[in-house]
Order: sequence, then structure tokens, then C-alpha cells
Amino acid sequence: MRITGTFVNTVPGDIPAANWGYEEWDRELELMKRIGIDTLILLRTGWKEWLCYPSKYLQAKMDCFESLYDYLKMYLSLCEKHGLRLFVGTYNSNHDWLSASYDVDYEAEIIMKSAKEMWDNYGSSPAFGGWYMTQEISRKESFRVIELWQKVAPYCKEISNGLPILISPGMAGVKSGNVHPRMAVTLEEHRSDWDWIFGQISGIVDIVAFQDGHVSFKELENFLAINSELAAKHGIECWTNAESFSRDIGSTNFPPIAWEKLIMKLEAAKRTGHSKAITYEFTPFMSPNGNYPAGKYLLERYCEYYEILYKNKVQEKEMA
Amino acid sequence: MRITGTFVNTVPGDIPAANWGYEEWDRELELMKRIGIDTLILLRTGWKEWLCYPSKYLQAKMDCFESLYDYLKMYLSLCEKHGLRLFVGTYNSNHDWLSASYDVDYEAEIIMKSAKEMWDNYGSSPAFGGWYMTQEISRKESFRVIELWQKVAPYCKEISNGLPILISPGMAGVKSGNVHPRMAVTLEEHRSDWDWIFGQISGIVDIVAFQDGHVSFKELENFLAINSELAAKHGIECWTNAESFSRDIGSTNFPPIAWEKLIMKLEAAKRTGHSKAITYEFTPFMSPNGNYPAGKYLLERYCEYYEILYKNKVQEKEMA
Amino acid sequence: MRITGTFVNTVPGDIPAANWGYEEWDRELELMKRIGIDTLILLRTGWKEWLCYPSKYLQAKMDCFESLYDYLKMYLSLCEKHGLRLFVGTYNSNHDWLSASYDVDYEAEIIMKSAKEMWDNYGSSPAFGGWYMTQEISRKESFRVIELWQKVAPYCKEISNGLPILISPGMAGVKSGNVHPRMAVTLEEHRSDWDWIFGQISGIVDIVAFQDGHVSFKELENFLAINSELAAKHGIECWTNAESFSRDIGSTNFPPIAWEKLIMKLEAAKRTGHSKAITYEFTPFMSPNGNYPAGKYLLERYCEYYEILYKNKVQEKEMA
Repeated sequence: MRITGTFVNTVPGDIPAANWGYEEWDRELELMKRIGIDTLILLRTGWKEWLCYPSKYLQAKMDCFESLYDYLKMYLSLCEKHGLRLFVGTYNSNHDWLSASYDVDYEAEIIMKSAKEMWDNYGSSPAFGGWYMTQEISRKESFRVIELWQKVAPYCKEISNGLPILISPGMAGVKSGNVHPRMAVTLEEHRSDWDWIFGQISGIVDIVAFQDGHVSFKELENFLAINSELAAKHGIECWTNAESFSRDIGSTNFPPIAWEKLIMKLEAAKRTGHSKAITYEFTPFMSPNGNYPAGKYLLERYCEYYEILYKNKVQEKEMA
Repeated sequence: MRITGTFVNTVPGDIPAANWGYEEWDRELELMKRIGIDTLILLRTGWKEWLCYPSKYLQAKMDCFESLYDYLKMYLSLCEKHGLRLFVGTYNSNHDWLSASYDVDYEAEIIMKSAKEMWDNYGSSPAFGGWYMTQEISRKESFRVIELWQKVAPYCKEISNGLPILISPGMAGVKSGNVHPRMAVTLEEHRSDWDWIFGQISGIVDIVAFQDGHVSFKELENFLAINSELAAKHGIECWTNAESFSRDIGSTNFPPIAWEKLIMKLEAAKRTGHSKAITYEFTPFMSPNGNYPAGKYLLERYCEYYEILYKNKVQEKEMA
Repeated sequence: MRITGTFVNTVPGDIPAANWGYEEWDRELELMKRIGIDTLILLRTGWKEWLCYPSKYLQAKMDCFESLYDYLKMYLSLCEKHGLRLFVGTYNSNHDWLSASYDVDYEAEIIMKSAKEMWDNYGSSPAFGGWYMTQEISRKESFRVIELWQKVAPYCKEISNGLPILISPGMAGVKSGNVHPRMAVTLEEHRSDWDWIFGQISGIVDIVAFQDGHVSFKELENFLAINSELAAKHGIECWTNAESFSRDIGSTNFPPIAWEKLIMKLEAAKRTGHSKAITYEFTPFMSPNGNYPAGKYLLERYCEYYEILYKNKVQEKEMA
């Protein structure tokens, strides 16, 4: 179960900025492609007042800062060059959808108008391959996001001649307590919630890729089996989002995961019928160019395990 | 608005030790000079029981450990070699100046006697270019520090034939809550406090360089304008301390800042009339030799933006 | 007082996984040997459901995951190659020994049966040089661990033809508050507790190596003197576990320590009669191949101080 997709992001939240430009991303996509990655998911094109591309609409409407660099254009250009497709994450206001004051129509308008602007300016790129809905929900309580997707997703699909819609929800397991202090979900609660949610978004969302890091390793395969079964029932394609960082290290929030744990998660996704594996997120956690030496070695172990030729010709020659 | 000064530090507090010696700092100052840095500020020569130079006075008076290496001598020597000037941070006892038991006379004596010892031993260096008062205050409530500076700063200036006095206060904005849990200051409270503080230290402190990271990006320029206006009113030179680490990343306290944010802050300081930009702190956050890969790329983006030739001749040749 | 031993670990807890394989550890042990390290201590062969070697017993008894790689075999093989000895840490269930429900007989059985299995499968290696008891106690309150060692240690020694038993307790000093929120121990409480504990394990545990990071630097030598004196009284060999990470940096839990502090601790251990220094832990904190640039420089400063030739012949040639 090789990883063939990864998130990328240039509007930092939890993970510090990489401060890369065209040259560094060019090198990175060449590496990604070489080890089998064919899909990038841009986590978000905007978040709160920060944008990764120039948007007259969002600068006026949401008082966003003007982006100094057009990362969206860069990713599309590099995806064309290296033969990858890009799922484009929409703008995310960071407004709290659990709050009664969350206005679905208002949020939908912002996302749709910025998506339209994006499609008008970048839709001619053959690498523009899909839309990513950025809201990371995990329970039925986030019903306002369902309503949002019901408005936004068909619109994005329509303006883009039917491009697919991707979501990447969490599972409200024992390791989600750090983020939202509430009781971990049981298998049956998870099944019940997502049976209902999938019923609401069937025909609207095309692909679901659950984040796989919030449940214990002992429970993981049972949760994955439910995800796969429910997605099939509701006609949604089921990928896994195999997190390449660890949630188990007390002292460091986002270090590269142990390679054995990554393999374990990927193989469990394979056994439960997932059709594709993406990761959050190749560059900081699995790349020799990332934030940690352990990331480079995670890639080496991963490539050894799946017998992937990771070094390029120049590197092979240097080693010979 | 290029960065032409940076803090350096070898008595670790929040930022881990670099464990560098003469050779590493020599290489670093060569790089600093090449990209336009002409001023170093040594954050502190001592803190609690730790010293960065041998001080018979502080070892006896404050029971400080003897320093294994004379970093003060090293910095002065390297500043001479590379043509930089060094502002020397005084000793900092870490005693709480908000406490009623804080004894201004006692603290002043320690700082003055250690400053005298330093000047006697190192004052002949032409690189000894100023004094840095290490207390990072942000509100009028720190009036005891004002009293301290009124005693200490004229003394330091007198013994050193008029060397300038630098301070680098904080702004008690929304991002200072992590450190001191209190309400963020408003623009008018900030103006009122610093009009009073500057009135007290006019003619005593020569240069102020506010830390620019504690207020929101939306508010920054308004705060900077007040700083610049008030400093001019009271005859104090106004620099900006453009922090090169991020205060916005939840999971990591001190990662390199996104390059767009650094540029944004520097340009806001330029528009509001600041005469010089320094940073806290080049080496861990902006150097290819620092703690993070993202620091190297921060420097590359920064140099691209300001069209600074960053590679040295050997490196340029290797790249050609 | 050179460091001649270090912990190694491949079952991550506080320190993120390195994701190294045979090649990386081969290079690392070659370096370790070159700078004078002759002893490795494998922190644990298993922890909770994670193992670093295949154990039919623990997979069945404790429902542990099967290890994808046999690190125990690898370390033994590499220790043979490079001429080091390996102390093998036992399995650790992570059960709370301060709880009344902690069952000493049950825990002892698990450790003894897994130790027997290890000895049967790996005992023929001449590098298998001792056993490490993984419980890190610091006070008399952990009397259940004493009872555990009284059962387990003689058994391990017996099946292995008398291999030595090592423990590495903490000192319940001011810096242990992060872990267990309780009052710091006084010198006399520490002496009283450990006089009793050593009395209980005399003839059972051969070597004690206290972790040296939980007490203040001002108190350290007094604590070390007690440790050395009590160990001698009870016929236990006394090493120091000189932690190479810092407990003083607020923002980062486990960065490399300042080199001056490491030297200070080692020299204090020398003055108080410790016979050997080990560290927790060379690879992440002192190695050029570790997690932090500062670790590489910690090794350089350490080697300069003790006049150790650190570069190998190839590197020396490259530098000439």
C-alpha cells in the first residue's frame, strides 16, 4: 500500500513554514514523482487573513493580506511539469462551526466566490485536478459543515466541469483529546455518525480520506473497516490519509512517525480495501529536505519496505 | 528595510544552546557581515548563576559558576576582525521587578560593578560599541526597572566615554498572553504608558528597539507608528527588533518565521520611520547553520526579496 | 571523566524515532567506538505493546505487535563487530508501580519469561554483556520495584552465567517536578531513602548509574557524593548517567545540553569517585547524525575538552 498522494501547505498553522520557493518545490516534486506520488492536495489556499495566492476577492471581502508570492500558480505549474494532479483546498475562515452563530450561507458565499475566482484564473491548467473541502470534522455534531458542503461542493464541481471533491475528516478517537477535550468515540458511535454523514453527502463528495492518527493502533483496523464499508455503501471512494507524523511523543507534537507504525497503518488500510493512500504530510516528515533528520530515514525505510528506487540517477552514480 | 543587527547569546534560556566555539562563530560573523549586518547585541553576559565570561566579581557576589570559555572576548575579537560593533548586555539576576521585594539599589550595584569590571577588562576593544539593558519591560507597571536604568545607564555611559545605551522592550499585545496572563494592551494604553516611560528615560537611553512579535499583524503598523512618534518626541532613536521566529505556531514555540511575515514586519517598520532593523535572532532562525532547515530558506527568501548577494565567492563558484 | 557508555533505544517514548536501520547504526557504533564508548545500554526491548525484536512470548502474553525488524539482533551483531558490550533492557509493561493494584509476581513472571526467551535466542552472542532493569525509581515509595528486582535480577543473572545487573534511577530533585508533581527531595531524605534501597538490593544489583539531571547544578556535587558513598557502603559499583539533553529550556523538552553543563556534571562525578560515565543518550543529543545541529557541536566541544580525536582518518584527510 504505497503512498501516492500528499498534502502540501504554505499557510502555516501547526507546522512551521518551510520558506521554500520555486526551486525547492521543483526539486521536491521531482522526488515525490520518483517515489510514486501522483497527487498533491493543497491544504488551503487561504486561512484567516493569510493567502497563498493573490485574491482580489478575499483581500476585499475578508481583509486578507496580499500574498507576496503565488504558490497556487507555482504548484499548478510544477504539477504540470512533473505530471501530478493538484486538489485545490478552498479558503478557510477558521470560524467555529460548532457555534450557533456560524452562518452557513455566509461561509458558503465566501468559499464559492473565491473558488470561482480561482477557477477563472487558474482553471485552464491541466493539473487542476480536484477540490479539497478543508473542514476537518469527525462527528455528527458538525452538521453545519455538512450543510456547507451541500452548497459548496456541487458548485465547485459545476464550475470546473465535474472535478472530484475530496474531504479528509478525523476519527474522534482517544488521541483526539489533545485537540477537543471530549470522550473518545466508540466504534458504534463512529459507524452511526458516519452512516448518517455519508448519507447526507453521497453524490456530493466523491472521495473520503480519513486521518488515521486519532485512534489507538489496536483499534485502527476496526475503524478502517467501518470507514471502507460505509463509504462503499454510500458510493464514496475511500482513501486513507496515513499521517506520517507521530501523535505518541509527549515532548514533541509533530515529529516524523516511526517507520514501523507507518507501515502498520498502510497495511491495515490495504487489508480493509482502501483504494489509495495519501499522507499528511510528505515534506516536513518524510523528505530528506524536511524539518527532521528522522524524516529522511523514514523515507529510506519506507522505500526499502516497498522496494521503491528512491535515489535518482545522479545519486546512484555518486554512491556507486 | 534590511536587517543590519542581531542579538547573539550563549547563556541559554528559551533557545537551546548552539554549542559553538570560535571557529563556528567566525564563520557566522563572516556570513552576517556579507549580508549587511554591522551590529551585534550580546543578549546578556550573565543570567542567574551562569556567565559567558570570567567575572571574579559575579562569581563572588552572586555565586555564579566560572565560565569555561570567554565568549565576550571571542565576540569582541571577531567583531574587530569582521568590522562589526558589539552592544554588550549587562548581567541579569532574573529577580522579579514586579515584586515589592525587588531592591533597585541592590540590583543597580550588581550591574554597575560587573559593568565596571567588564569595561576595565574589555573596554580597550574598538568593537565595544554600546551597552544593552537586558530588562524586557512592556508596561508602566515595571517602574522599578525605569528607576534601575536611571541609575545604571548613565554610569555605564560615563565609564565608557559615552557609549550608547540600547533597550528592547516588548509590546503587551495579544500574543504576550502566553508569557504573562493579562489583558492585551490597547493602542492608547500603549501610547500612554510609553509616553510616560520615554519621558523618564529621555537623555538616559539612546536607542529603543521594540520587539515586534507580540501584537497581531493587523495592529502592527499602528503600534509601530506610535513607537516611532513617541521616540522622536522624547529624543530617542527608534529601531525595530524584527523577530525572526514565529509566535503563531501552536506546536513549536520558536520556529523560524514565514518569510512573508518577516518582510511584512520590516516594511511596516520602514513606513513608520524606523531608522534600523535588528532581529532576535539571526543564528537559530535565519542562518544556514542554525537549528532549523527553514531558517536557511528564510535567509534565502529574505536575500532574494532585498536583492542581497548571499552566497560567498567560493559558493558562487561552486554553483556556476 | 570521559563518557564511555550510552543508552540506545528503538521503542520511542519521549524521544522521537530515528528510523535508522543497520547501515546507520553501523556508522554510529563506529563513531561511538572511536570516541571511547565501549558500552551500550538498550533502554528496553519492549514497552507496552511495542517490541524491538520478535518475541513469541510477549506477542502472545501481552498482545504486543510483532516487530518488523530485529533490533536486538542488530545491536548484538554490531557490538560484536565494533567491540562493544550490550546491556539488554528488559520488557517494561508501563504498569504503575505506585498503584496498590501493581502485582509484583505477575510483572516478575513477564520479565523473567521474556528474559529467558531472549537469553535462549541471543545469549550465544559474546556481546551480550549484562542486563538493564528498566524501572526508573527515585524514592523509597517505589518499594514494589525493589521487590520486583529481588525476584527478577537474580534470575537474569543465573540464566546468563552471572552477567551484571545495571539500574539507572533518578534523583527526586527540583527538576523532577515536571514528571511527578511533588516536593523536591532534600539531601538527607535522598540519603535515607537510598541507604535503605541499596540495603535491599545489595548483592542483587551490581551497578547503579543515577540520572544526573533532576537536581540543580548548585546541589549536584552534594547529591553525587551521597550516591557514591552509599554505593560503596553497600558494595554496588557507582557510575554516573550524565544526561546529554537539557532540562532547563522552557520551550523545548529535550534539546542537546550546553557543553559547559555536561563538562561540569562529568567533572563533579569524577571528583566524587564515580568509576564510569554513561549518557542518556548519545545519538539524538551528541551525534552529528542526531536530531539537532547543536548535538554535533556538543560532541565537538566535548572532544576538544577531553582531547579526543573525533574525526576519522578519511575526515582528517579531507580537512588537511
